[in-house]
Amino acid sequence: MQISINEMQYYKNFDEIARDILAMAKESLPDRLIYLTSFARKKQMILKLSEPNPSIHIHEGMVIDINDTVCNQIDFDNNAPLIYEDMSRETKLDDLRQALIGANINSYLGVPIILSNGEAFGTLCAVHTHANTITAKSTNTIQTIAKMFSYYLDLERLAYRDSLTGLYNRQFLYKYFEEKFGTGGALFFLDLDGFKNINDSYGHEAGDFILREVALRLEGFVQRHNGVAVRLGGDEFVINLIDHLSKEEWGKHAEYLLSQLSSWDIPLEGFQLSVSIGIALYAPSDGNPLKVVLKQADNALYSAKAMGKNTYQFNPDL
Amino acid sequence: MQISINEMQYYKNFDEIARDILAMAKESLPDRLIYLTSFARKKQMILKLSEPNPSIHIHEGMVIDINDTVCNQIDFDNNAPLIYEDMSRETKLDDLRQALIGANINSYLGVPIILSNGEAFGTLCAVHTHANTITAKSTNTIQTIAKMFSYYLDLERLAYRDSLTGLYNRQFLYKYFEEKFGTGGALFFLDLDGFKNINDSYGHEAGDFILREVALRLEGFVQRHNGVAVRLGGDEFVINLIDHLSKEEWGKHAEYLLSQLSSWDIPLEGFQLSVSIGIALYAPSDGNPLKVVLKQADNALYSAKAMGKNTYQFNPDL
Repeated sequence: MQISINEMQYYKNFDEIARDILAMAKESLPDRLIYLTSFARKKQMILKLSEPNPSIHIHEGMVIDINDTVCNQIDFDNNAPLIYEDMSRETKLDDLRQALIGANINSYLGVPIILSNGEAFGTLCAVHTHANTITAKSTNTIQTIAKMFSYYLDLERLAYRDSLTGLYNRQFLYKYFEEKFGTGGALFFLDLDGFKNINDSYGHEAGDFILREVALRLEGFVQRHNGVAVRLGGDEFVINLIDHLSKEEWGKHAEYLLSQLSSWDIPLEGFQLSVSIGIALYAPSDGNPLKVVLKQADNALYSAKAMGKNTYQFNPDL
Repeated sequence: MQISINEMQYYKNFDEIARDILAMAKESLPDRLIYLTSFARKKQMILKLSEPNPSIHIHEGMVIDINDTVCNQIDFDNNAPLIYEDMSRETKLDDLRQALIGANINSYLGVPIILSNGEAFGTLCAVHTHANTITAKSTNTIQTIAKMFSYYLDLERLAYRDSLTGLYNRQFLYKYFEEKFGTGGALFFLDLDGFKNINDSYGHEAGDFILREVALRLEGFVQRHNGVAVRLGGDEFVINLIDHLSKEEWGKHAEYLLSQLSSWDIPLEGFQLSVSIGIALYAPSDGNPLKVVLKQADNALYSAKAMGKNTYQFNPDL
């Protein structure tokens, strides 16, 4: 599961740590602008600069298409730094030259930031307006700093992600809801039908496989909409979507999810799985905390289960 | 739960990270000897030096009584650095002067390494044979490096510790047993009697409180003997003891644990809790992997439960 760019705002101490990281890198390369970036969904975001630099045209919060960024050429598989000491002499950069000239960068060092699960988080970069050599020692230092930073990122991820599926966990949902509540939306409470039977009949490994597959499908869904997918625990999931839709349109989302999670091509005798969904809609004016909205969705889920499962219900209070 | 000094050997990449940490610190204070230390059970251990230094008499693996080390004067509560630019001029150091002269250290910077749960892990220090000033900037850098290192330590701890009780987890037990197996010993498999009833009658918070209290008592026990305490999950615990005792002596240990874990002064009506213990003894010559030894101890535990609980049994194969 990729870290979404706005996940960062929930990280404890992110600003402080990022500032420290950049200050340490700056000590090794004092004449360069240093910055941290993250990748998500074919975009690169500039998270933090060592300092504002009027000569170099990048700024915090800037989002760049992944194909227009030199950082995308970094060899993440081999965790290798990418160095261009004089971009004007590089012949391989034709497609990027225009972007680099636009940003006024003529010398570049980029090192990958890779999480412990192998995922590419982003990059730590040091750039200069002019051609400039970079020593192996400085490169090593920047790499070490990037590695240290990845330990911090791994820790935050452990705090906010479910370890089995990689989805967000309950703790993240509470933080997220608190901040995003003001926009209103819908909370889908999903519970798998027949999951206990899978664990009992085919073992925990089969059960874990199913949970991960459910998570992948939910993640795919929220990536196409404006939402987050959460595993509350066991076979309980939540999707929180921020949007202003009619009840009918929310129902179409639910029907799509029902079809997605009831179609399984699994060669196990008697295998059957579907999902029941309870939906709570909330408006900013309701002022209900997540606990209440979750309870509403849970009540709706209970109705869906009582109606024979593999169906959805809205919160009856609506 | 304190990190024991030999826990470090199970940390993934510890040597590599420690080397990086020291190299980064060295960049900021190139003329000093830098070293990492850890605290455990009233001792300080020198874990790693930036390089061997014949003029300064400390070495890797050195263990110092906590009362004989200047690092013990660091203010961990306020996460503050401790600086002595010229020890010969310090008047507060009377008790330590001899030790410092012995080590040939006349200038000292020590910063605390504190884990995210607030526990003092140890220190990152930079020392010199001669009096020497230390800038605020260098001190800041060393503090930042120590903070980065603590993220690494936190991650390792998350991998090897049970989050509820702080005891080691199953993953650690497998690594530990693999390495320590050669010495032979005993594996105690403990399962609480009546724990499910506590969760059902008094709620999960009461249950978690009990599990943490059990963990504290087991930790106290293994600290006095040569062993590690592990929470396997739920209300199942394992104690692995490395010793060559007679069956009768092992039985005395078991009886002590039975009494420790059946005496509860808890003001809840009907509260009752004890423990059943299965013991497997193993010799290096057996060559059995942990999986087999655990199974033997589990069989013995089953016998203890069948005999009416609150008792212990040895593996019947013995």
